[in-house]
Amino acid sequence: MSPSQANSKLISTGPLDPAEARWIRLVKQTYNDPLGVERTWESAERQTRPANAEIDGVGIVTILNKPTGPELLLQKQYRPPIDKVVIEVPAGLIDAGETPEQCAVRELKEETGYVGVAEQTSPVMYNDPGFCNTNLNMVHVRVDMSLPENQNPKPELEDNEFIECFSVPLASLFEETKRLEKEGYAIDARVGTLAEGMELMKKWKL
Amino acid sequence: MSPSQANSKLISTGPLDPAEARWIRLVKQTYNDPLGVERTWESAERQTRPANAEIDGVGIVTILNKPTGPELLLQKQYRPPIDKVVIEVPAGLIDAGETPEQCAVRELKEETGYVGVAEQTSPVMYNDPGFCNTNLNMVHVRVDMSLPENQNPKPELEDNEFIECFSVPLASLFEETKRLEKEGYAIDARVGTLAEGMELMKKWKL
Repeated sequence: MSPSQANSKLISTGPLDPAEARWIRLVKQTYNDPLGVERTWESAERQTRPANAEIDGVGIVTILNKPTGPELLLQKQYRPPIDKVVIEVPAGLIDAGETPEQCAVRELKEETGYVGVAEQTSPVMYNDPGFCNTNLNMVHVRVDMSLPENQNPKPELEDNEFIECFSVPLASLFEETKRLEKEGYAIDARVGTLAEGMELMKKWKL
Repeated sequence: MSPSQANSKLISTGPLDPAEARWIRLVKQTYNDPLGVERTWESAERQTRPANAEIDGVGIVTILNKPTGPELLLQKQYRPPIDKVVIEVPAGLIDAGETPEQCAVRELKEETGYVGVAEQTSPVMYNDPGFCNTNLNMVHVRVDMSLPENQNPKPELEDNEFIECFSVPLASLFEETKRLEKEGYAIDARVGTLAEGMELMKKWKL
């Protein structure tokens, strides 16, 4: 049983000296606009993307097919940049030489204990492309709930990782995000937007 | 008729001096982890969020209800941080004192020419909360296609804005994102994840 995310606490926040930064950096782009006019842009990047990798990491969509209906596997994790506990899908940064699918299966095992098989990979998705270059593939990992290793899955977290896993009925994901936000959690864009997509299907009866 | 996004071109990219940065900044957080251990984190922020605002901006979901079926309103926009033309939903930064709904209606008019009414607002969604604090509400704006002002909508773009609007059948959004990626476009996470949510509904027959 990991200690509660709610025990995390922001102490202070201030400017970061680029000379000291090990994980991220600021970048200036100079470009020609469609009319040929030279302009500049400011953006942020991770320093961790491996050479030759096209993505920073993966997001993982895993459905636990329970007798009561399919449930989406989610996590609670304290995120210092927003000083909130965030509701997220399992996710992780890609290692050098790894495919998105290998990364997803590895991270799912490490963060949640579930053993699965990658069965579908999304296009590369850009998280906020007017602001930064960070991106990911969403990888759908199938988990066979009948396997012995998935009966009582045990995460293998690093000493500095604090992640709580849970799942919610897929059919009520939108209502769950509303409820969790009311309880003080922040909603990661992947979780919230999956729910929005599902609502669009219902509304337009597709 | 705006010039093609494809004419945009990256000239150079390099470090950005924080003293020179006007739009973004690097931040260092000091925090206690759930065990009470003091740790630090590096993140990025926009400098543009108005005081007292809880969000940086909005993403806009607008369905054009055509005789041939509902279509999702999208944009093509060159984004220097990734040096690609990105497929995005209409979006924009919030002005001081503005509600998310006011921002969505204003930005939709400016970027696409369509006049609409905000009818639903998502939880606040965090774009990449392990990396930055940027966030938005997704606002669903209803556009009445029978109104005279929506017959031939004219965007009101700034001199430095180059946006091309188009729409795709909502029912085939996932296939459209795959096709557009193959054609060399980048897929914004909101667009790609809406499509993923719709596919989940189909797959699990919800």
